[in-house]
Amino acid sequence: MQLPSFQVPPRTIMTPGPVEVDPRVLRAMSASILGQFDPSFTSLMNETMELLRKVLQTENHWAYPIDGTSRAGIEAMLCSVIEEEDKVLVPSFGRFGYLLTEIAERCGADVHLMHCEWGEVFDPQDIISEMKNIRPKVVAIVHGDTSTGRMQPLAEIGAACRESGSLLIVDAVATVAGTEVKTDEWKIDGLITGTQKCLSVPAGMAPITYNERIEAVISLRKAIERGLVPQEQLTSRNLDRRIQSNYFDLSQLQDYWSPARLNHHTEATSMLYGLYEGLWIILEEGLANRYQRHRLNEQALVAGITAMGLSIFGNSSCKLPTVTCVEIPDGIDGEAVRAMLLDEFGIEIASSFGPLHGKIWRIGTMGYSCQKRNVLLTLASLEAVLLRHRVKIHPGEAVQAALDVYQQAVKQSS
Amino acid sequence: MQLPSFQVPPRTIMTPGPVEVDPRVLRAMSASILGQFDPSFTSLMNETMELLRKVLQTENHWAYPIDGTSRAGIEAMLCSVIEEEDKVLVPSFGRFGYLLTEIAERCGADVHLMHCEWGEVFDPQDIISEMKNIRPKVVAIVHGDTSTGRMQPLAEIGAACRESGSLLIVDAVATVAGTEVKTDEWKIDGLITGTQKCLSVPAGMAPITYNERIEAVISLRKAIERGLVPQEQLTSRNLDRRIQSNYFDLSQLQDYWSPARLNHHTEATSMLYGLYEGLWIILEEGLANRYQRHRLNEQALVAGITAMGLSIFGNSSCKLPTVTCVEIPDGIDGEAVRAMLLDEFGIEIASSFGPLHGKIWRIGTMGYSCQKRNVLLTLASLEAVLLRHRVKIHPGEAVQAALDVYQQAVKQSS
Repeated sequence: MQLPSFQVPPRTIMTPGPVEVDPRVLRAMSASILGQFDPSFTSLMNETMELLRKVLQTENHWAYPIDGTSRAGIEAMLCSVIEEEDKVLVPSFGRFGYLLTEIAERCGADVHLMHCEWGEVFDPQDIISEMKNIRPKVVAIVHGDTSTGRMQPLAEIGAACRESGSLLIVDAVATVAGTEVKTDEWKIDGLITGTQKCLSVPAGMAPITYNERIEAVISLRKAIERGLVPQEQLTSRNLDRRIQSNYFDLSQLQDYWSPARLNHHTEATSMLYGLYEGLWIILEEGLANRYQRHRLNEQALVAGITAMGLSIFGNSSCKLPTVTCVEIPDGIDGEAVRAMLLDEFGIEIASSFGPLHGKIWRIGTMGYSCQKRNVLLTLASLEAVLLRHRVKIHPGEAVQAALDVYQQAVKQSS
Repeated sequence: MQLPSFQVPPRTIMTPGPVEVDPRVLRAMSASILGQFDPSFTSLMNETMELLRKVLQTENHWAYPIDGTSRAGIEAMLCSVIEEEDKVLVPSFGRFGYLLTEIAERCGADVHLMHCEWGEVFDPQDIISEMKNIRPKVVAIVHGDTSTGRMQPLAEIGAACRESGSLLIVDAVATVAGTEVKTDEWKIDGLITGTQKCLSVPAGMAPITYNERIEAVISLRKAIERGLVPQEQLTSRNLDRRIQSNYFDLSQLQDYWSPARLNHHTEATSMLYGLYEGLWIILEEGLANRYQRHRLNEQALVAGITAMGLSIFGNSSCKLPTVTCVEIPDGIDGEAVRAMLLDEFGIEIASSFGPLHGKIWRIGTMGYSCQKRNVLLTLASLEAVLLRHRVKIHPGEAVQAALDVYQQAVKQSS
């Protein structure tokens, strides 16, 4: 075979994920394998649940990762809760709202989709009115949609769901550990996140949490696998309401993540090591400090982009703090700019999807990638690339504006 | 928090997975993150496909990993192929045959289950007769079932499927890279394996391959996600026959693993590094050498167990070379023996499921765990633990018998 040997070029990753990972996490992942029922490993599973509860700001008992990428967690939550013909309300303000409808439809849901313009979010009262019309079993919504860089306020929606008996399921993939996500206080019943964004662990796991209201639905649908326990214990297999996926069946996953340890899949050993270490790092930094760091780097980035003369896309009152959408100047090939930034400077920023494709770049400030050095290097390099593409910008302004933000922050804290 | 810091005790893992991993794989996994659309990463995806084809002995174009554990791969294959009411024949000779029925049922299949006694496999002619009665769209079968330690011959079944128009889907999780699996020569249409067994990569990925016959079925069910391409391109979304899972939709995954790179999930970066390196290691050793190494260590283990005076479970003519099932002597608490082996010697062997629970231990000889040192240490330690439990065995015989096998092999090869 004529394949090159394994090599990874150095990169500064300023996309909405996957983002850079703390070397401590990578070191943890290089530890040797433990068997899945080794007490050292099952302790690690229990401790990971404990750390997750803290990061997700919840008292829920159930808080564990799905072995798959973020959308695996979303599908596990939705398909375990939604049954054929269940009414599901999905207020969508970007691509990942559509993803919720896609997954819910495939679970057989009667999906009611609410749209809003990309770049905006919903007035919570509009969602609450629609809930009154539809009386959905589930309201499924994205907290921060990276496709448009917007963040939906959730507290009022959570209160309304609790009052009306709807279950609130939230995709918080882009926000957890980067900005405030108060699972219990906002009355979120089921929440999904992903490892590859602000948790700053490699892609491949989707931590979830859910409360007793969701557990009650799941328990009614429980069916133990044949061949796993003696036949005589399988008198009631509860097949009518069985969850349509085996891999994503939370009633089985619960048993695997409980002292019963009923065998389901083989937990992803090295990824769990990485998640555990990543969660430790977050709690060592402290949630409040971590959110503050994300805000500061976002402010510096926005100040730099604006000083350069570029425009920030979308309604700023609902801007997602972990993603900054930048309008591509007229007549410029956004992909050529991205390619030069990657090829010459080793810096990656993201393009975008659907109606926004070719219209905006998306710059992430997430997790380990969210640091001063990265923001400054990105601004300096983007400026150089734009000048090279003959875009009319204000040379020299961007980095200075960002430095001002950082200096101001030091002054305020001292 | 009062949690212990991250630590992994030293272990010799002699279970049917997860098994030990070559330190080269762990080093590869500790490389820094690359963006999912970074050309360095998409090249790595393409190269991984090329390596996979060689390890899976196929000319199929489609050969890529599902981001999830082994059963994620099985579910992806089955739910992408099976539609409501499709007839699926599952000849089951152990727990993982039942798993195929579980998954197929949840896809809405009309499942026809064939049983055989645990410890046996099927006469291929019996399966072929049943195929003639039922005319299934799919025959789904396990190649090596670790629950009973048996391996089903597949070549005749493959030929019969090709002739009759049925699709043959094989769970080869326990056999690929440990013993011969000839995907194309045996006329297997779809094949699934896992990383945590003989591939000797951490759990969390399930490489699959499938041919044009399966691709044709999948293509008819293709439906692009809303929000991913401009609305006007979504005139035909083909919703009637849409695959019931979004995460496991092979028609979308194909687009992600093709030059189109249509965004689906975020590929699990570090796991892909590990898989790539693990496949390289397999091809460097050479498939024939690797199978030979697995046979030799199995022979030494079986010779040792037998010399000790213990019995090997099941029909030896269909023994799975990568798992050895040992009958637990009468009156002995199998779990106490396993616990002492782990606690005092740091060696892990496996218990078993369903009807065999408490009756057999299962000892794996897979991948990096499959080496002389591990076999000798396991035999010596198991002997000591059994003596401590006052089991009447022949002291001192086991390791000597294993050494004889290794010595004989050296003589024959010189």
